[in-house]
Amino acid sequence: MKQGVLYGVGVGPGDPELLTLKAVRIVSACDAVCFPEMKSAFEIAHTAMPEIADKEIIPLDLPMTRDAEVLRLGREKAAARIMETLKSGKSVAFLTLGDVSIYSTFGYVRRIIAEQGYETQAIPGITSFCAAAAALGEDLALWEEPLHIIPASYPDLPGALRMKGTRVLMKSGSAIPEVRALLQDQGLAAAARVVENCGMENQRVWKSVNDMGDAKTGYFTLIIIKDE
Amino acid sequence: MKQGVLYGVGVGPGDPELLTLKAVRIVSACDAVCFPEMKSAFEIAHTAMPEIADKEIIPLDLPMTRDAEVLRLGREKAAARIMETLKSGKSVAFLTLGDVSIYSTFGYVRRIIAEQGYETQAIPGITSFCAAAAALGEDLALWEEPLHIIPASYPDLPGALRMKGTRVLMKSGSAIPEVRALLQDQGLAAAARVVENCGMENQRVWKSVNDMGDAKTGYFTLIIIKDE
Repeated sequence: MKQGVLYGVGVGPGDPELLTLKAVRIVSACDAVCFPEMKSAFEIAHTAMPEIADKEIIPLDLPMTRDAEVLRLGREKAAARIMETLKSGKSVAFLTLGDVSIYSTFGYVRRIIAEQGYETQAIPGITSFCAAAAALGEDLALWEEPLHIIPASYPDLPGALRMKGTRVLMKSGSAIPEVRALLQDQGLAAAARVVENCGMENQRVWKSVNDMGDAKTGYFTLIIIKDE
Repeated sequence: MKQGVLYGVGVGPGDPELLTLKAVRIVSACDAVCFPEMKSAFEIAHTAMPEIADKEIIPLDLPMTRDAEVLRLGREKAAARIMETLKSGKSVAFLTLGDVSIYSTFGYVRRIIAEQGYETQAIPGITSFCAAAAALGEDLALWEEPLHIIPASYPDLPGALRMKGTRVLMKSGSAIPEVRALLQDQGLAAAARVVENCGMENQRVWKSVNDMGDAKTGYFTLIIIKDE
């Protein structure tokens, strides 16, 4: 029997209308869908395509942790579970928030599955930083300006913030107090825009990180800092 | 009469299926479309939505040059022409390759038009670097890796190439010989992947910049360099 194909499908950051025509076509044609434990990617796709609830749903247990061994085991287990379905000739759509090639668990799972000889394909998605710029009504970069995408957990964040060009801090949620202090130290806080849950129903926008008060923000919070 | 709205619409880098559902809805609803002289953005949207040929087409003369004064005048003329249509109550879709917030002429034209009190909105698009990573079957960044997007014309390119993380050189076409020499100097050439015209019919991919020989490449050429 011919093996199924694994598609990594970026569903964009939140607004179901930001699925691409290709994502809709590929997900429609797949026999099964899977997604990380955090269900956002499924919910976005499901709002755009209610019929996917009728597909085989492959449950994955991908823990959110910084423990490398727990992460590795979770990914191997997820890959093994997906390969069971691929082996039976069924194609699988792995739904992922934003784009598949940027900070997505799909990257790890795909490697394991590709090494076993299965065909994998990536369908790009709208990134959270592009959608956040659109929500703010601002550009990310023009002309010769570089654009730096930096996870808020990056070890040398002070150095990264000193780079020329636009800096986007991803996944800043729980680190906001520390990041804000750092931005204030570097004189960057006033112009540091914040977007939480971009395109989702609970989207929040602050024109400056200084305006946030004691607001608690979730995992999908990003900060955009442009050169003056 | 109510003024029309200007929508900047990212149509993605080449594959017409990478238009989002939102881009299709917004462009369909607009009375008029415009796009830079280089017609790629229109051709991509037209392939996905042949009916846009029946809309009012606003001709824009946006020169490709590094002469700042010629650029400024071109943008002001384009903005004035678009405002004529907005004034009559018609909405306009400004089609742009890739995403609207990254190196798009829309950014300049929108500023002029917004300053005159018109409503503008941006509809994000798939970036060329996300589509190129998908075409290569590779990730751009995982875990704590930063991702740097750098125009090939950036003045301190040697410094930019020394940054940690993944570096994407945009619009490298005519600069390939110089960029390749620089990559070879820094020991980065073997792992520097090249994608030209990603998602278009004339897409070309090289696994290393060293494999390109004397190939001439166009404006939409990008180079992806990952940490080993």
